[in-house]
Amino acid sequence: MNKKIILVTGGQRSGKSELSEKLALENSDTPVYVATAHVADDEFRERVRIHQNRRGCNWTTIEEEIELSRHNLSGKTAVIDCVTMWVTNVFFKNGEDVKVSLDILKKEFDRFTSNKAVYIFVSNEIGSGGVAPNALTRKFTDLQGWFNQYIASRADEVYLTVSGIPLKIK
Amino acid sequence: MNKKIILVTGGQRSGKSELSEKLALENSDTPVYVATAHVADDEFRERVRIHQNRRGCNWTTIEEEIELSRHNLSGKTAVIDCVTMWVTNVFFKNGEDVKVSLDILKKEFDRFTSNKAVYIFVSNEIGSGGVAPNALTRKFTDLQGWFNQYIASRADEVYLTVSGIPLKIK
Amino acid sequence: MNKKIILVTGGQRSGKSELSEKLALENSDTPVYVATAHVADDEFRERVRIHQNRRGCNWTTIEEEIELSRHNLSGKTAVIDCVTMWVTNVFFKNGEDVKVSLDILKKEFDRFTSNKAVYIFVSNEIGSGGVAPNALTRKFTDLQGWFNQYIASRADEVYLTVSGIPLKIK
Repeated sequence: MNKKIILVTGGQRSGKSELSEKLALENSDTPVYVATAHVADDEFRERVRIHQNRRGCNWTTIEEEIELSRHNLSGKTAVIDCVTMWVTNVFFKNGEDVKVSLDILKKEFDRFTSNKAVYIFVSNEIGSGGVAPNALTRKFTDLQGWFNQYIASRADEVYLTVSGIPLKIK
Repeated sequence: MNKKIILVTGGQRSGKSELSEKLALENSDTPVYVATAHVADDEFRERVRIHQNRRGCNWTTIEEEIELSRHNLSGKTAVIDCVTMWVTNVFFKNGEDVKVSLDILKKEFDRFTSNKAVYIFVSNEIGSGGVAPNALTRKFTDLQGWFNQYIASRADEVYLTVSGIPLKIK
Repeated sequence: MNKKIILVTGGQRSGKSELSEKLALENSDTPVYVATAHVADDEFRERVRIHQNRRGCNWTTIEEEIELSRHNLSGKTAVIDCVTMWVTNVFFKNGEDVKVSLDILKKEFDRFTSNKAVYIFVSNEIGSGGVAPNALTRKFTDLQGWFNQYIASRADEVYLTVSGIPLKIK
Protein backbone atom coordinates (compact mmCIF):
# COMPACT_ATOMS: atom_id res chain seq x y z
CA MET A 1 0.00 0.00 0.00
CA ASN A 2 1.28 3.42 -0.96
CA LYS A 3 0.82 6.45 1.21
CA LYS A 4 -1.86 8.83 0.04
CA ILE A 5 -3.10 12.09 1.53
CA ILE A 6 -6.46 13.50 0.47
CA LEU A 7 -8.04 16.78 1.58
CA VAL A 8 -11.79 17.32 1.33
CA THR A 9 -12.76 20.92 2.02
CA GLY A 10 -15.94 22.99 1.60
CA GLY A 11 -18.58 24.95 3.43
CA GLN A 12 -20.89 23.63 6.14
CA ARG A 13 -23.40 21.03 4.85
CA SER A 14 -21.76 20.91 1.45
CA GLY A 15 -21.30 17.14 1.46
CA LYS A 16 -17.72 16.86 2.76
CA SER A 17 -18.29 13.93 5.13
CA GLU A 18 -20.36 11.98 2.61
CA LEU A 19 -17.63 12.35 -0.03
CA SER A 20 -14.89 11.40 2.43
CA GLU A 21 -16.69 8.27 3.48
CA LYS A 22 -17.30 7.33 -0.15
CA LEU A 23 -13.60 7.81 -0.97
CA ALA A 24 -12.66 5.71 2.07
CA LEU A 25 -14.93 2.84 1.09
CA GLU A 26 -13.43 2.84 -2.41
CA ASN A 27 -10.08 2.14 -0.72
CA SER A 28 -11.06 -0.23 2.06
CA ASP A 29 -13.88 -2.40 3.37
CA THR A 30 -12.92 -1.65 6.95
CA PRO A 31 -11.99 2.02 7.17
CA VAL A 32 -11.08 3.91 10.30
CA TYR A 33 -12.98 6.98 11.44
CA VAL A 34 -10.90 9.44 13.49
CA ALA A 35 -13.30 11.69 15.39
CA THR A 36 -11.58 14.87 16.58
CA ALA A 37 -14.61 16.59 18.07
CA HIS A 38 -14.81 17.47 21.72
CA VAL A 39 -18.46 16.58 22.39
CA ALA A 40 -19.43 19.42 24.68
CA ASP A 41 -23.22 19.70 24.39
CA ASP A 42 -26.37 18.00 23.21
CA GLU A 43 -26.58 19.90 19.92
CA PHE A 44 -23.19 18.56 18.99
CA ARG A 45 -23.90 15.04 20.24
CA GLU A 46 -26.87 15.00 17.86
CA ARG A 47 -24.62 15.91 14.91
CA VAL A 48 -22.24 13.11 15.86
CA ARG A 49 -25.12 10.64 16.01
CA ILE A 50 -26.37 11.57 12.53
CA HIS A 51 -22.88 11.01 11.09
CA GLN A 52 -22.48 7.67 12.90
CA ASN A 53 -25.85 6.39 11.65
CA ARG A 54 -24.83 7.07 8.07
CA ARG A 55 -21.64 5.05 8.44
CA GLY A 56 -22.06 1.28 8.80
CA CYS A 57 -20.71 -1.09 11.44
CA ASN A 58 -17.68 -1.97 9.31
CA TRP A 59 -16.07 1.26 10.46
CA THR A 60 -13.70 1.44 13.43
CA THR A 61 -13.91 4.68 15.38
CA ILE A 62 -11.01 6.37 17.17
CA GLU A 63 -11.71 9.43 19.30
CA GLU A 64 -8.69 11.72 19.43
CA GLU A 65 -9.02 15.43 20.08
CA ILE A 66 -5.39 16.57 19.82
CA GLU A 67 -2.53 14.07 19.51
CA LEU A 68 -3.38 12.23 16.30
CA SER A 69 0.15 10.83 15.95
CA ARG A 70 -0.43 8.57 18.98
CA HIS A 71 -2.30 6.33 16.51
CA ASN A 72 -0.34 4.34 13.93
CA LEU A 73 -2.65 3.71 10.99
CA SER A 74 -0.19 1.78 8.80
CA GLY A 75 -2.02 -0.12 6.09
CA LYS A 76 -5.36 1.47 6.98
CA THR A 77 -7.65 3.93 5.23
CA ALA A 78 -8.77 6.67 7.59
CA VAL A 79 -11.16 9.60 7.50
CA ILE A 80 -10.12 12.38 9.87
CA ASP A 81 -13.29 14.33 10.64
CA CYS A 82 -12.57 17.06 11.03
CA VAL A 83 -9.51 19.27 10.83
CA THR A 84 -11.49 22.27 12.07
CA MET A 85 -12.26 20.56 15.39
CA TRP A 86 -8.65 19.43 15.70
CA VAL A 87 -7.46 23.00 15.06
CA THR A 88 -9.97 24.29 17.61
CA ASN A 89 -8.74 21.90 20.29
CA VAL A 90 -5.07 22.74 19.70
CA PHE A 91 -5.83 26.48 19.54
CA PHE A 92 -7.61 26.59 22.90
CA LYS A 93 -5.10 24.29 24.59
CA ASN A 94 -2.30 26.67 23.59
CA GLY A 95 -3.62 29.97 24.84
CA GLU A 96 -5.24 30.91 21.48
CA ASP A 97 -1.75 31.54 20.09
CA VAL A 98 -1.86 31.24 16.29
CA LYS A 99 1.89 30.84 15.73
CA VAL A 100 2.40 28.22 18.44
CA SER A 101 -0.72 26.30 17.41
CA LEU A 102 0.20 26.28 13.71
CA ASP A 103 3.65 24.97 14.55
CA ILE A 104 2.22 22.16 16.70
CA LEU A 105 -0.39 21.24 14.09
CA LYS A 106 2.17 21.01 11.28
CA LYS A 107 4.46 18.79 13.36
CA GLU A 108 1.58 16.55 14.45
CA PHE A 109 0.38 16.32 10.87
CA ASP A 110 3.81 15.28 9.61
CA ARG A 111 4.23 12.71 12.38
CA PHE A 112 0.70 11.31 11.96
CA THR A 113 1.02 10.96 8.19
CA SER A 114 4.51 9.44 8.25
CA ASN A 115 3.17 5.87 8.01
CA LYS A 116 1.97 4.21 4.81
CA ALA A 117 -1.79 4.68 4.92
CA VAL A 118 -4.57 6.49 3.11
CA TYR A 119 -5.42 9.67 5.03
CA ILE A 120 -8.59 11.52 4.10
CA PHE A 121 -8.77 14.85 5.94
CA VAL A 122 -12.10 16.69 6.14
CA SER A 123 -11.79 20.43 6.67
CA ASN A 124 -13.90 23.59 6.39
CA GLU A 125 -13.75 26.69 4.26
CA ILE A 126 -14.52 29.41 6.80
CA GLY A 127 -13.00 32.58 5.36
CA SER A 128 -15.57 33.61 2.72
CA GLY A 129 -18.09 35.34 4.96
CA GLY A 130 -16.38 38.64 5.57
CA VAL A 131 -14.16 39.72 8.45
CA ALA A 132 -15.41 38.54 11.84
CA PRO A 133 -16.33 41.20 14.40
CA ASN A 134 -14.10 39.78 17.14
CA ALA A 135 -10.33 39.26 17.24
CA LEU A 136 -10.47 35.66 18.50
CA THR A 137 -12.49 34.52 15.48
CA ARG A 138 -10.14 36.41 13.16
CA LYS A 139 -7.17 34.62 14.71
CA PHE A 140 -8.89 31.26 14.34
CA THR A 141 -9.72 32.03 10.72
CA ASP A 142 -6.03 32.76 10.08
CA LEU A 143 -4.96 29.52 11.73
CA GLN A 144 -7.54 27.38 9.92
CA GLY A 145 -6.70 28.96 6.56
CA TRP A 146 -2.96 28.57 6.94
CA PHE A 147 -3.27 24.97 8.10
CA ASN A 148 -5.63 24.14 5.22
CA GLN A 149 -2.97 25.52 2.88
CA TYR A 150 -0.35 23.34 4.59
CA ILE A 151 -2.42 20.16 4.24
CA ALA A 152 -3.35 20.99 0.63
CA SER A 153 0.32 21.50 -0.25
CA ARG A 154 1.15 18.03 1.07
CA ALA A 155 -1.97 16.33 -0.31
CA ASP A 156 -2.02 14.12 -3.39
CA GLU A 157 -5.63 15.06 -4.07
CA VAL A 158 -7.79 17.98 -2.95
CA TYR A 159 -11.55 18.20 -3.38
CA LEU A 160 -13.83 21.21 -2.87
CA THR A 161 -17.48 20.32 -2.29
CA VAL A 162 -20.26 22.69 -3.41
CA SER A 163 -23.91 21.72 -2.85
CA GLY A 164 -22.85 18.09 -2.59
CA ILE A 165 -20.84 18.17 -5.83
CA PRO A 166 -17.13 17.32 -5.51
CA LEU A 167 -14.74 19.48 -7.53
CA LYS A 168 -11.29 17.95 -7.82
CA ILE A 169 -8.99 20.95 -7.57
CA LYS A 170 -5.68 19.08 -7.17
CA MET B 1 -40.31 20.47 -24.47
CA ASN B 2 -38.19 18.33 -22.19
CA LYS B 3 -38.02 18.87 -18.46
CA LYS B 4 -34.84 20.52 -17.27
CA ILE B 5 -33.73 21.50 -13.78
CA ILE B 6 -30.90 24.00 -13.33
CA LEU B 7 -29.38 25.17 -10.05
CA VAL B 8 -27.47 28.46 -9.87
CA THR B 9 -25.69 28.89 -6.56
CA GLY B 10 -23.06 31.27 -5.21
CA GLY B 11 -22.36 33.94 -2.65
CA GLN B 12 -24.22 37.22 -2.24
CA ARG B 13 -23.72 39.63 -5.17
CA SER B 14 -21.83 37.02 -7.18
CA GLY B 15 -24.07 37.34 -10.25
CA LYS B 16 -26.55 34.50 -9.62
CA SER B 17 -29.70 36.37 -10.68
CA GLU B 18 -28.07 37.85 -13.79
CA LEU B 19 -26.91 34.38 -14.90
CA SER B 20 -30.32 32.83 -14.19
CA GLU B 21 -32.12 35.47 -16.21
CA LYS B 22 -29.67 35.02 -19.08
CA LEU B 23 -30.20 31.24 -19.04
CA ALA B 24 -33.96 31.75 -18.97
CA LEU B 25 -33.92 34.10 -21.98
CA GLU B 26 -31.86 31.57 -23.94
CA ASN B 27 -34.77 29.16 -23.44
CA SER B 28 -37.78 31.42 -23.80
CA ASP B 29 -38.87 34.88 -24.95
CA THR B 30 -41.51 35.02 -22.24
CA PRO B 31 -40.05 33.53 -19.07
CA VAL B 32 -41.73 33.34 -15.70
CA TYR B 33 -40.20 34.85 -12.59
CA VAL B 34 -41.22 33.12 -9.34
CA ALA B 35 -40.51 35.53 -6.47
CA THR B 36 -40.34 33.71 -3.15
CA ALA B 37 -39.39 36.66 -0.96
CA HIS B 38 -41.58 37.87 1.83
CA VAL B 39 -41.19 41.62 1.39
CA ALA B 40 -41.00 42.72 4.99
CA ASP B 41 -39.22 46.06 4.95
CA ASP B 42 -38.06 48.94 2.77
CA GLU B 43 -34.48 47.68 2.43
CA PHE B 44 -35.77 44.49 0.91
CA ARG B 45 -38.35 46.26 -1.26
CA GLU B 46 -35.48 48.25 -2.75
CA ARG B 47 -33.61 45.03 -3.66
CA VAL B 48 -36.75 43.67 -5.32
CA ARG B 49 -37.10 46.87 -7.34
CA ILE B 50 -33.51 46.71 -8.61
CA HIS B 51 -34.04 43.13 -9.79
CA GLN B 52 -37.36 43.99 -11.47
CA ASN B 53 -35.86 46.94 -13.33
CA ARG B 54 -33.17 44.70 -14.79
CA ARG B 55 -35.74 42.27 -16.14
CA GLY B 56 -37.87 43.52 -19.04
CA CYS B 57 -41.65 43.59 -19.43
CA ASN B 58 -41.67 40.25 -21.29
CA TRP B 59 -41.38 38.50 -17.93
CA THR B 60 -44.44 37.25 -16.02
CA THR B 61 -44.07 37.45 -12.24
CA ILE B 62 -45.59 35.02 -9.75
CA GLU B 63 -45.30 35.76 -6.04
CA GLU B 64 -45.27 32.57 -4.01
CA GLU B 65 -43.64 32.37 -0.60
CA ILE B 66 -44.20 28.69 0.29
CA GLU B 67 -46.38 26.45 -1.86
CA LEU B 68 -44.67 26.55 -5.23
CA SER B 69 -46.48 23.45 -6.47
CA ARG B 70 -49.76 25.41 -6.62
CA HIS B 71 -48.41 26.77 -9.90
CA ASN B 72 -48.29 24.51 -12.96
CA LEU B 73 -45.55 25.81 -15.23
CA SER B 74 -45.86 23.19 -17.98
CA GLY B 75 -44.16 24.37 -21.14
CA LYS B 76 -42.71 27.43 -19.44
CA THR B 77 -39.21 28.51 -18.48
CA ALA B 78 -39.08 29.77 -14.93
CA VAL B 79 -36.52 31.39 -12.64
CA ILE B 80 -37.19 30.66 -8.98
CA ASP B 81 -35.51 33.46 -7.03
CA CYS B 82 -34.61 32.40 -4.56
CA VAL B 83 -34.42 29.06 -2.78
CA THR B 84 -32.98 30.72 0.33
CA MET B 85 -36.10 32.83 0.81
CA TRP B 86 -38.32 29.82 0.18
CA VAL B 87 -36.36 27.81 2.77
CA THR B 88 -36.63 30.73 5.20
CA ASN B 89 -40.41 30.94 4.83
CA VAL B 90 -40.90 27.17 5.28
CA PHE B 91 -38.47 27.10 8.23
CA PHE B 92 -40.27 29.82 10.21
CA LYS B 93 -43.73 28.50 9.34
CA ASN B 94 -42.74 25.12 10.80
CA GLY B 95 -41.39 26.11 14.18
CA GLU B 96 -37.77 26.32 12.99
CA ASP B 97 -37.69 22.51 12.80
CA VAL B 98 -34.96 21.43 10.39
CA LYS B 99 -36.16 17.86 9.83
CA VAL B 100 -39.81 18.79 9.26
CA SER B 101 -38.88 21.72 7.02
CA LEU B 102 -36.46 19.66 4.91
CA ASP B 103 -39.12 17.01 4.40
CA ILE B 104 -41.70 19.58 3.30
CA LEU B 105 -39.25 21.32 0.98
CA LYS B 106 -38.23 18.07 -0.74
CA LYS B 107 -41.86 17.06 -1.31
CA GLU B 108 -42.80 20.52 -2.58
CA PHE B 109 -39.77 20.50 -4.87
CA ASP B 110 -40.70 17.12 -6.35
CA ARG B 111 -44.32 18.15 -6.86
CA PHE B 112 -43.43 21.55 -8.33
CA THR B 113 -40.89 20.09 -10.78
CA SER B 114 -43.06 17.17 -11.88
CA ASN B 115 -44.32 19.03 -14.97
CA LYS B 116 -42.36 19.43 -18.21
CA ALA B 117 -40.78 22.84 -17.87
CA VAL B 118 -37.38 24.47 -17.51
CA TYR B 119 -36.79 25.25 -13.82
CA ILE B 120 -33.89 27.54 -12.93
CA PHE B 121 -33.42 27.65 -9.18
CA VAL B 122 -31.32 30.44 -7.64
CA SER B 123 -29.80 29.60 -4.27
CA ASN B 124 -27.10 30.84 -1.91
CA GLU B 125 -23.87 29.41 -0.59
CA ILE B 126 -24.02 30.43 3.08
CA GLY B 127 -21.80 27.93 4.89
CA SER B 128 -18.30 29.23 4.15
CA GLY B 129 -18.05 31.95 6.76
CA GLY B 130 -17.42 29.93 9.88
CA VAL B 131 -19.82 28.61 12.46
CA ALA B 132 -22.56 31.11 13.41
CA PRO B 133 -22.69 32.27 17.04
CA ASN B 134 -26.37 31.37 17.50
CA ALA B 135 -28.14 28.02 17.23
CA LEU B 136 -30.97 29.26 15.02
CA THR B 137 -28.56 30.36 12.29
CA ARG B 138 -26.68 27.07 12.57
CA LYS B 139 -29.93 25.17 12.08
CA PHE B 140 -30.83 27.30 9.08
CA THR B 141 -27.36 26.74 7.61
CA ASP B 142 -27.88 22.98 7.95
CA LEU B 143 -31.28 23.15 6.29
CA GLN B 144 -30.10 25.36 3.42
CA GLY B 145 -27.03 23.19 2.82
CA TRP B 146 -28.96 19.93 2.80
CA PHE B 147 -31.66 21.30 0.52
CA ASN B 148 -29.04 22.70 -1.88
CA GLN B 149 -27.53 19.21 -2.01
CA TYR B 150 -30.99 17.76 -2.74
CA ILE B 151 -31.66 20.19 -5.59
CA ALA B 152 -28.15 19.70 -7.01
CA SER B 153 -28.59 15.92 -6.99
CA ARG B 154 -31.78 16.27 -9.06
CA ALA B 155 -30.47 19.03 -11.33
CA ASP B 156 -29.33 18.50 -14.90
CA GLU B 157 -26.96 21.44 -14.64
CA VAL B 158 -25.40 23.23 -11.66
CA TYR B 159 -23.55 26.54 -11.85
CA LEU B 160 -21.44 28.21 -9.18
CA THR B 161 -20.98 31.96 -9.69
CA VAL B 162 -17.80 33.70 -8.48
CA SER B 163 -17.36 37.44 -9.06
CA GLY B 164 -19.92 37.26 -11.85
CA ILE B 165 -18.19 34.33 -13.57
CA PRO B 166 -20.30 31.16 -13.96
CA LEU B 167 -18.52 27.88 -13.28
CA LYS B 168 -20.44 24.87 -14.59
CA ILE B 169 -19.87 22.25 -11.91
CA LYS B 170 -22.44 19.68 -13.11
CA MET C 1 4.44 45.76 -22.97
CA ASN C 2 0.77 44.98 -23.36
CA LYS C 3 -1.81 45.95 -20.77
CA LYS C 4 -3.03 43.09 -18.65
CA ILE C 5 -5.53 42.99 -15.80
CA ILE C 6 -5.60 40.03 -13.42
CA LEU C 7 -8.00 39.47 -10.51
CA VAL C 8 -7.09 37.12 -7.67
CA THR C 9 -10.03 36.48 -5.36
CA GLY C 10 -10.76 34.02 -2.56
CA GLY C 11 -11.51 33.70 1.13
CA GLN C 12 -9.35 34.92 3.98
CA ARG C 13 -6.03 33.04 4.28
CA SER C 14 -6.63 31.15 1.06
CA GLY C 15 -3.32 32.14 -0.50
CA LYS C 16 -4.35 35.20 -2.54
CA SER C 17 -1.37 37.40 -1.72
CA GLU C 18 1.13 34.59 -2.24
CA LEU C 19 -0.32 33.82 -5.68
CA SER C 20 -0.41 37.50 -6.64
CA GLU C 21 3.21 38.01 -5.70
CA LYS C 22 4.20 34.88 -7.64
CA LEU C 23 2.34 36.11 -10.73
CA ALA C 24 4.00 39.52 -10.38
CA LEU C 25 7.50 38.05 -10.18
CA GLU C 26 6.82 35.98 -13.31
CA ASN C 27 6.27 39.31 -15.08
CA SER C 28 8.90 41.52 -13.54
CA ASP C 29 12.03 41.51 -11.38
CA THR C 30 11.06 44.80 -9.81
CA PRO C 31 7.33 44.78 -9.18
CA VAL C 32 5.33 47.47 -7.44
CA TYR C 33 3.22 46.79 -4.37
CA VAL C 34 0.23 49.11 -3.96
CA ALA C 35 -0.89 48.94 -0.33
CA THR C 36 -4.44 50.23 0.10
CA ALA C 37 -4.84 49.49 3.79
CA HIS C 38 -5.47 52.20 6.29
CA VAL C 39 -3.26 50.96 9.13
CA ALA C 40 -5.43 51.77 12.11
CA ASP C 41 -4.27 49.45 14.88
CA ASP C 42 -1.56 47.09 16.04
CA GLU C 43 -3.32 43.92 14.92
CA PHE C 44 -3.39 45.25 11.40
CA ARG C 45 0.17 46.56 11.53
CA GLU C 46 1.26 43.03 12.38
CA ARG C 47 -0.51 41.63 9.30
CA VAL C 48 1.20 44.25 7.13
CA ARG C 49 4.58 43.32 8.57
CA ILE C 50 4.10 39.60 7.83
CA HIS C 51 3.25 40.40 4.21
CA GLN C 52 6.23 42.76 3.85
CA ASN C 53 8.66 40.19 5.24
CA ARG C 54 7.54 37.65 2.66
CA ARG C 55 8.21 40.06 -0.19
CA GLY C 56 11.85 40.84 -0.89
CA CYS C 57 13.61 44.19 -1.16
CA ASN C 58 13.24 44.27 -4.96
CA TRP C 59 9.66 45.44 -4.47
CA THR C 60 8.70 49.13 -4.50
CA THR C 61 5.83 49.98 -2.17
CA ILE C 62 3.22 52.68 -2.78
CA GLU C 63 0.73 53.46 -0.06
CA GLU C 64 -2.53 54.72 -1.49
CA GLU C 65 -5.82 54.37 0.34
CA ILE C 66 -8.26 55.89 -2.18
CA GLU C 67 -7.03 57.66 -5.31
CA LEU C 68 -5.09 54.94 -7.10
CA SER C 69 -5.16 56.81 -10.40
CA ARG C 70 -2.74 59.42 -8.99
CA HIS C 71 -0.05 56.82 -9.71
CA ASN C 72 0.98 56.16 -13.31
CA LEU C 73 2.36 52.63 -13.46
CA SER C 74 3.14 52.50 -17.20
CA GLY C 75 5.51 49.67 -18.00
CA LYS C 76 5.31 48.30 -14.47
CA THR C 77 3.87 45.15 -12.92
CA ALA C 78 1.82 45.96 -9.83
CA VAL C 79 0.00 44.03 -7.13
CA ILE C 80 -2.90 46.00 -5.66
CA ASP C 81 -3.47 44.53 -2.18
CA CYS C 82 -6.25 44.73 -1.62
CA VAL C 83 -9.47 45.77 -3.32
CA THR C 84 -11.46 45.12 -0.13
CA MET C 85 -9.50 47.78 1.77
CA TRP C 86 -9.79 50.19 -1.13
CA VAL C 87 -13.57 49.61 -1.22
CA THR C 88 -13.73 50.10 2.56
CA ASN C 89 -11.91 53.43 2.38
CA VAL C 90 -14.09 54.77 -0.45
CA PHE C 91 -17.27 53.50 1.27
CA PHE C 92 -16.59 55.28 4.54
CA LYS C 93 -15.35 58.47 2.88
CA ASN C 94 -18.65 58.68 0.98
CA GLY C 95 -21.16 58.33 3.77
CA GLU C 96 -21.53 54.55 3.36
CA ASP C 97 -23.47 55.16 0.16
CA VAL C 98 -23.28 52.05 -2.04
CA LYS C 99 -24.32 53.68 -5.32
CA VAL C 100 -22.02 56.69 -5.00
CA SER C 101 -19.10 54.52 -3.86
CA LEU C 102 -19.53 52.00 -6.68
CA ASP C 103 -19.59 54.80 -9.22
CA ILE C 104 -16.39 56.34 -7.82
CA LEU C 105 -14.63 52.97 -7.67
CA LYS C 106 -15.48 52.10 -11.27
CA LYS C 107 -14.23 55.48 -12.54
CA GLU C 108 -11.05 55.25 -10.47
CA PHE C 109 -10.48 51.70 -11.69
CA ASP C 110 -10.85 52.73 -15.35
CA ARG C 111 -8.55 55.72 -14.91
CA PHE C 112 -5.95 53.74 -12.94
CA THR C 113 -5.84 50.88 -15.46
CA SER C 114 -5.77 53.10 -18.54
CA ASN C 115 -1.96 52.89 -18.83
CA LYS C 116 -0.06 49.93 -20.29
CA ALA C 117 0.93 47.92 -17.26
CA VAL C 118 0.25 44.58 -15.62
CA TYR C 119 -2.31 45.09 -12.85
CA ILE C 120 -2.85 42.24 -10.37
CA PHE C 121 -5.81 43.02 -8.11
CA VAL C 122 -6.24 41.04 -4.90
CA SER C 123 -9.80 40.90 -3.60
CA ASN C 124 -11.93 38.93 -1.15
CA GLU C 125 -14.93 36.66 -1.47
CA ILE C 126 -17.07 37.80 1.46
CA GLY C 127 -20.63 36.82 0.53
CA SER C 128 -20.69 33.08 1.29
CA GLY C 129 -21.27 33.21 5.02
CA GLY C 130 -24.96 34.00 5.19
CA VAL C 131 -26.69 37.34 5.50
CA ALA C 132 -25.02 39.68 8.00
CA PRO C 133 -27.06 40.79 11.02
CA ASN C 134 -26.51 44.50 10.45
CA ALA C 135 -27.45 46.71 7.49
CA LEU C 136 -24.04 48.37 7.15
CA THR C 137 -22.31 45.03 6.57
CA ARG C 138 -25.01 44.02 4.09
CA LYS C 139 -24.43 47.24 2.15
CA PHE C 140 -20.69 46.67 2.15
CA THR C 141 -21.19 43.08 0.95
CA ASP C 142 -23.28 44.41 -1.95
CA LEU C 143 -20.65 46.97 -2.87
CA GLN C 144 -17.74 44.52 -2.68
CA GLY C 145 -19.63 41.90 -4.70
CA TRP C 146 -20.67 44.31 -7.43
CA PHE C 147 -17.18 45.80 -7.70
CA ASN C 148 -15.60 42.32 -7.85
CA GLN C 149 -17.96 41.57 -10.75
CA TYR C 150 -16.90 44.80 -12.45
CA ILE C 151 -13.19 44.02 -12.12
CA ALA C 152 -13.70 40.40 -13.22
CA SER C 153 -15.60 41.54 -16.31
CA ARG C 154 -12.66 43.75 -17.31
CA ALA C 155 -9.95 41.27 -16.31
CA ASP C 156 -7.98 39.16 -18.78
CA GLU C 157 -7.49 36.47 -16.14
CA VAL C 158 -9.34 35.65 -12.91
CA TYR C 159 -8.12 33.23 -10.25
CA LEU C 160 -10.03 31.83 -7.28
CA THR C 161 -7.81 30.51 -4.49
CA VAL C 162 -8.98 27.63 -2.27
CA SER C 163 -6.69 26.31 0.48
CA GLY C 164 -3.73 27.80 -1.34
CA ILE C 165 -4.66 26.21 -4.68
CA PRO C 166 -5.27 28.63 -7.56
CA LEU C 167 -8.23 27.86 -9.81
CA LYS C 168 -8.14 29.78 -13.09
CA ILE C 169 -11.79 30.65 -13.68
CA LYS C 170 -11.30 33.12 -16.56
